[in-house]
Amino acid sequence: MSEQPAVTTLVDEIRRISYLESALDLLGWDQETAMPRGGAKTRARARGELTEIVHSAWQAPSFSDALRAAEDVVDGDGRSARLVREVRRRYDRRVRVPSSLAEETAIATSEAQTAWIEARSKNAFSQFAPHLERLLKLRRRTAEALRYEGESLYDALMDKYEPYGRAAKVRELGEQVKPTLIELVGKYAPICREVRRDFLSRPFPVEQQQAFGEQVLRDLGYDLERGLIAVSAHPFCSGISSPSDVRVTTRYTENDVKSALSGLIHECGHALYEQGFDPEWEGTPVAQAISMGIHESQSRLWENQIGTSPEFWSHYFPKLVDQFPDQLGDVELDEFVRAFNIVEPSLIRVEADEVTYNLHVLLRFELEQDLLEERLPVADLPTVWNQKMEEYLGLRPDSDATGCLQDIHWSMGAFGYFPTYFLGNVYSAQFYTAARAALPDLDQQISRGEFQPLRNWLRTEIHELGSVYSATEISERVSGTDLHADALLTYLKSKFETLYS
Amino acid sequence: MSEQPAVTTLVDEIRRISYLESALDLLGWDQETAMPRGGAKTRARARGELTEIVHSAWQAPSFSDALRAAEDVVDGDGRSARLVREVRRRYDRRVRVPSSLAEETAIATSEAQTAWIEARSKNAFSQFAPHLERLLKLRRRTAEALRYEGESLYDALMDKYEPYGRAAKVRELGEQVKPTLIELVGKYAPICREVRRDFLSRPFPVEQQQAFGEQVLRDLGYDLERGLIAVSAHPFCSGISSPSDVRVTTRYTENDVKSALSGLIHECGHALYEQGFDPEWEGTPVAQAISMGIHESQSRLWENQIGTSPEFWSHYFPKLVDQFPDQLGDVELDEFVRAFNIVEPSLIRVEADEVTYNLHVLLRFELEQDLLEERLPVADLPTVWNQKMEEYLGLRPDSDATGCLQDIHWSMGAFGYFPTYFLGNVYSAQFYTAARAALPDLDQQISRGEFQPLRNWLRTEIHELGSVYSATEISERVSGTDLHADALLTYLKSKFETLYS
Repeated sequence: MSEQPAVTTLVDEIRRISYLESALDLLGWDQETAMPRGGAKTRARARGELTEIVHSAWQAPSFSDALRAAEDVVDGDGRSARLVREVRRRYDRRVRVPSSLAEETAIATSEAQTAWIEARSKNAFSQFAPHLERLLKLRRRTAEALRYEGESLYDALMDKYEPYGRAAKVRELGEQVKPTLIELVGKYAPICREVRRDFLSRPFPVEQQQAFGEQVLRDLGYDLERGLIAVSAHPFCSGISSPSDVRVTTRYTENDVKSALSGLIHECGHALYEQGFDPEWEGTPVAQAISMGIHESQSRLWENQIGTSPEFWSHYFPKLVDQFPDQLGDVELDEFVRAFNIVEPSLIRVEADEVTYNLHVLLRFELEQDLLEERLPVADLPTVWNQKMEEYLGLRPDSDATGCLQDIHWSMGAFGYFPTYFLGNVYSAQFYTAARAALPDLDQQISRGEFQPLRNWLRTEIHELGSVYSATEISERVSGTDLHADALLTYLKSKFETLYS
Repeated sequence: MSEQPAVTTLVDEIRRISYLESALDLLGWDQETAMPRGGAKTRARARGELTEIVHSAWQAPSFSDALRAAEDVVDGDGRSARLVREVRRRYDRRVRVPSSLAEETAIATSEAQTAWIEARSKNAFSQFAPHLERLLKLRRRTAEALRYEGESLYDALMDKYEPYGRAAKVRELGEQVKPTLIELVGKYAPICREVRRDFLSRPFPVEQQQAFGEQVLRDLGYDLERGLIAVSAHPFCSGISSPSDVRVTTRYTENDVKSALSGLIHECGHALYEQGFDPEWEGTPVAQAISMGIHESQSRLWENQIGTSPEFWSHYFPKLVDQFPDQLGDVELDEFVRAFNIVEPSLIRVEADEVTYNLHVLLRFELEQDLLEERLPVADLPTVWNQKMEEYLGLRPDSDATGCLQDIHWSMGAFGYFPTYFLGNVYSAQFYTAARAALPDLDQQISRGEFQPLRNWLRTEIHELGSVYSATEISERVSGTDLHADALLTYLKSKFETLYS
């Protein structure tokens, strides 16, 4: 790269910080995958200390000087100008929140998480309610401090996860999809109750699951020279230094052949995104994720559009049977695919299928927006949650633990995160539609286990743009339009029609 | 702990730095045990960046202010005074070396390591010689800059690994032990050539070796709630945050049942030392190692005095046979113990047995001292090395790769490190003699697999002292005398007499 000196200086500053962020990411990765229990206390302090140092680095006069100097020399809409603009966006978000507020929030969050664990174990929302109240107040103050040019306080918070995202747009998309989703659940849940599925929960030895999953990830194009597969309590992907070191985890259950594999393919989608960044720009916004929604679009595309499809399984089912002849010898391919795609309303989001998942997420989005904008009193949350569950999924939680206390997000003060799960699904359907138009042989390629054409297309169209194009710009470049829900609805209707009718 | 406020402030400063050092240790641990190859470049930069931040933290005015303020309030010889004195010692070592010299050394070291790898692969010492010359010059300058109150420039460097150590003392001990060691080699090597050993290199499946090794470490008292066993190219122990997170590695070879297990027990000895520090003082010199010699005494004591003894194997051999009946069913306990303890001169230090090992180390110590003090020209190193090998072990290397290029230490500029291996053996024999006097049933306890009495004794007498007592003080407290070689010679003579006569 040959940049103007002021831009190079800014890039150097950003990179220096990225090395520390890489260390922070490793502290987190190790905590989830390896650290013995005894290390927890010191680890929390080490992460705190390093977080503070990163924060100071952003706030150093040398950094703001470098930023201003770079802003003075770039113009237009090229990569340098976009890079500098993205650094400015992040910088403003960081420095606008007063340290005192950040500290107060950190303490409140830590206390809220402890209270949430306790409240959940006792099924007692009232124990968590005052903490939620306090966090909402603090997050409103943060949203104000950000002086965000969105339409609402909620937008200011969502911007952390989905830059330039708008709650109004999410609500509009939500209203558009909900009736159809509810209709699909009504139509396919009864059919699926009759679908044979016993073989999915036969004993599948964990070591063989591991070997099979690793082979699938290699086939999909996950590069183990720049990656690692580990085990943790909850599957996740961590870019220790993307694109050169991007790791994934999953968890294995012997009596469940679907869960670990689906989790791995999901995390692999995240990892392919980060391994697809331009290595020359490692440690800068050119090689970083633009938004959680786009990130999730990549994981969901590989997990759902690819990993649950009849084409995918026409290639992999014979291999799975070879690996597990005793468990799957009496199962036909189409039986397996139907079992793998069962639609079934349940109380728990993280166990939800492809159709009901969006309803779980929209419910949370609507409630958290109402909480933040003071249209819903905290005390009413359990009641309204349960009403909405009944309305969307026909189920009523029998406890707060399986109701409004099930997710960690609110106890972390992460308001505005949930919609990115939904946006990820919307984007993934849009992108997949565009990919099929661009690659007319895609279905046949998947059936043959050829993933390189799709992966290359995603890399060129999405991954390599890093965070210097907004999610909207990416969407428009890829599919010719801004975010819309038609692709998602068409995909779901057609898929389940083919599978179960 | 209730300390004077100025001491508490200093402890807080030291602890804050220790959190960053913990992150640095984790970056190193991960690099050796998990990191994919692709992450290497960024990892090197992340370590560099964090190292610089740690260095700046030591050099911050707030730190020297806190140190002086603490020095003003402590007196006498209590724990606080000792703690402050140890911080001062480390502080002086750090700040006395000018940054320019530190940077020059870092660059020279990095280049020397690349050259060393190349030279070793080509058996060409001449390629490494100019780098060694340059590093020696730089280290002499460092030794001068340290203004160390020892007897020689070598002492100033050795002080980094063995605080208050003296080359003259090592030389005196070396002269004392060498004749006996050479005599023991001459006596037992011929006998050992006749000792049956084929069964040690039968195929021992790695997974079973792992399970057996883990059980032994648990029995020895290694706490896996505060530890972790991993695999790496070379065995090591890393205190990520001692005593709360202390990890070990080993490497497994199928056709070698001794190597991985000996390595594990050795690293376990290191780990028991660090797990034995006082948790209340974590992150301070009260809970840190005093010297590499003392550290090595702990690893060698468990590896040799315990882990190769007939008592140890009278307990474990039946268990090993249970684990590997096909491989060891035709072997008797005493055959096994004799094979495990074979004395056999070889060219490579890291493969050496308990008797020859010290000769390998003394050779290096003598040569590096002569190099540093300009009594030996760099160009003559291979010749003198080979002469000494002939003199001490009766072997002559057929190449530089198996001669003076075999170890990484000099390419890292680590002059003064080698004697700590020898000192470790000297201390371990002294300590073990004292332990046997203090615990009259020790042999019987080991035969029954009871390690707690010995471990507790070591903890109280050595581990809990951390680095606020010098190695000499520890030696005097434990064995009533300063460092001496009699215990080592008595131990070796008696052990091999019993085994092979």
